[in-house]
Amino acid sequence: MSLRNRLTDTFGITHPIVAAPMDYVSDARLASAVTQAGGLGLVGGGYGDEAWLAHQFAALTAAPVGCGFITWSLGHQPHLLDHVISHRPAAIFLSFGDPAPYARTIREAGIPLICQVHDITQARRAIEVGADVIAAQGGEAGGHGGGLRSTFTLVPEIADLLHATAPDVMLLAAGGITDGRTLAAALALGADGALVGTRFWASPEAAVSRAAQNHALAASGDDTIRQQVYDLIREKSWPPHYTGRVLNNDFLRRWHGHEIHLTHHLPHTRAQFNTALAAEDYQVANIIVGEGIGRITSIAPVATIITEMVTRATQILAPPEPRQYRP
Amino acid sequence: MSLRNRLTDTFGITHPIVAAPMDYVSDARLASAVTQAGGLGLVGGGYGDEAWLAHQFAALTAAPVGCGFITWSLGHQPHLLDHVISHRPAAIFLSFGDPAPYARTIREAGIPLICQVHDITQARRAIEVGADVIAAQGGEAGGHGGGLRSTFTLVPEIADLLHATAPDVMLLAAGGITDGRTLAAALALGADGALVGTRFWASPEAAVSRAAQNHALAASGDDTIRQQVYDLIREKSWPPHYTGRVLNNDFLRRWHGHEIHLTHHLPHTRAQFNTALAAEDYQVANIIVGEGIGRITSIAPVATIITEMVTRATQILAPPEPRQYRP
Repeated sequence: MSLRNRLTDTFGITHPIVAAPMDYVSDARLASAVTQAGGLGLVGGGYGDEAWLAHQFAALTAAPVGCGFITWSLGHQPHLLDHVISHRPAAIFLSFGDPAPYARTIREAGIPLICQVHDITQARRAIEVGADVIAAQGGEAGGHGGGLRSTFTLVPEIADLLHATAPDVMLLAAGGITDGRTLAAALALGADGALVGTRFWASPEAAVSRAAQNHALAASGDDTIRQQVYDLIREKSWPPHYTGRVLNNDFLRRWHGHEIHLTHHLPHTRAQFNTALAAEDYQVANIIVGEGIGRITSIAPVATIITEMVTRATQILAPPEPRQYRP
Repeated sequence: MSLRNRLTDTFGITHPIVAAPMDYVSDARLASAVTQAGGLGLVGGGYGDEAWLAHQFAALTAAPVGCGFITWSLGHQPHLLDHVISHRPAAIFLSFGDPAPYARTIREAGIPLICQVHDITQARRAIEVGADVIAAQGGEAGGHGGGLRSTFTLVPEIADLLHATAPDVMLLAAGGITDGRTLAAALALGADGALVGTRFWASPEAAVSRAAQNHALAASGDDTIRQQVYDLIREKSWPPHYTGRVLNNDFLRRWHGHEIHLTHHLPHTRAQFNTALAAEDYQVANIIVGEGIGRITSIAPVATIITEMVTRATQILAPPEPRQYRP
């Protein structure tokens, strides 16, 4: 059985699985592995580093592969958009900020635009600017997000909205999709496919320290927390209302909720953080994973992850036709 | 096709749908309607009112029907447990607090115990005290909860935990289940059934003001918020860490985040709240609904809601066997 649908047809892929463009973690190796296994890999452009991006595109070993950006950060280096477009990515994925300033350029280049959104207001904006795909990310996802809506309600509500107002725009569900059961649930909720982050983070192909992965495997989903402490530490000036989900640890138990106090201790705590990062001490350094980490108990190759997801999801779901969207 | 399984067999019901025991909203009429339509109705014992409870049990027109309590509040009137047991409810549902002080009495009375939990720690506790069913409630649900975990990740993680440590304990998914797509998703995630609140709140059988229902129908899922303002106003001393999801409104925009200041204005704001409640002014009075309200666009009879949920879910899911739990 197969989960092929309009999403797989559009991107010329086998499975409706897209890799979240996790900055630095989603390098050429991870993105290529996801595409090689039949999904759509995305390079994590993140805060934007031209040399790193050029290197990743040169190192890709599979196609199609797209690229993601942190939208507000792209505003500091808008030329990176042209740089990435010159590599002819399979999609450009914009998240965290108004996509309007970049949407036209992307569309005129003939590159599919994926807009990640965290609530209904952002979804309406993505439709307005001409997104080809909306990734609806619930607050259970790892890393930054709005944190106010959750996958289980946000995905079907945006599916309804698209059905009513923009039926050609496709929908990815993001936040908590780690296996076949959650992939099946995402499709049942009305998504065309899944955006997968944390599960690929826990693969050998991800550019992640093995110590960090092993540390995270022991966690339950109760052990993650949305916070802004590490943005302060790393001097990333995120717009208000965005918080980042990471593993809770001693450092956050000390500083979360005491951010103003932390500003008085920055040089020292920054040094402490950098030392911990180098030493792989994750009671101080950050591990960016979502609530789904609680269901991940082993590091597995990307191809194994994707095969198991698709196999199990096809067992759970009825064959395609009855699964087609209806409000 | 049917969704019958061990949950429906255990309770002698037709569909794996249980009504959330919403205090006062889930009276004899709503609970009876859910049972009449093939689900399991629960009377909302809430903070505990013996006369009200006696009246509801006397007024039931269908069986089986169970009863729910706010666990910490039951501690103030523990005799209510014996009172409810004397009515031989089909289940007793405990939520918000340690179920241990009551679990033995309930089990010795031969009444199935449903424990609602909001995280993995609480799920382990529910297993420990001998719960027959765990209701895993994500923070997207209306009313009180822990607010830290979400349906999409909490349900499969507890399904895994039960499979590994207590395979006879059944699992309900709660938070965001409003229709067939979300019911299908809940079952795909590994639940045996769904606990439905907000969707039944928006039925003519619910003990809810029609003005409140009409007001809520206009909301998107973005329009709800977790808060503690109304607990302060209503003098409900909830244990720390519990917040309640309600529709956002002018009153919350004024007071949410300013609770300490609110304590200095209580007599006046309480009077304002009570006046607004009587006048059905929902910019001041509270409407307790979950994020799922964004997908509810009409008031529908309970029987219609259940029929549509089950019909659509059976179209989405493969026939029962392949849906059986596997980790």
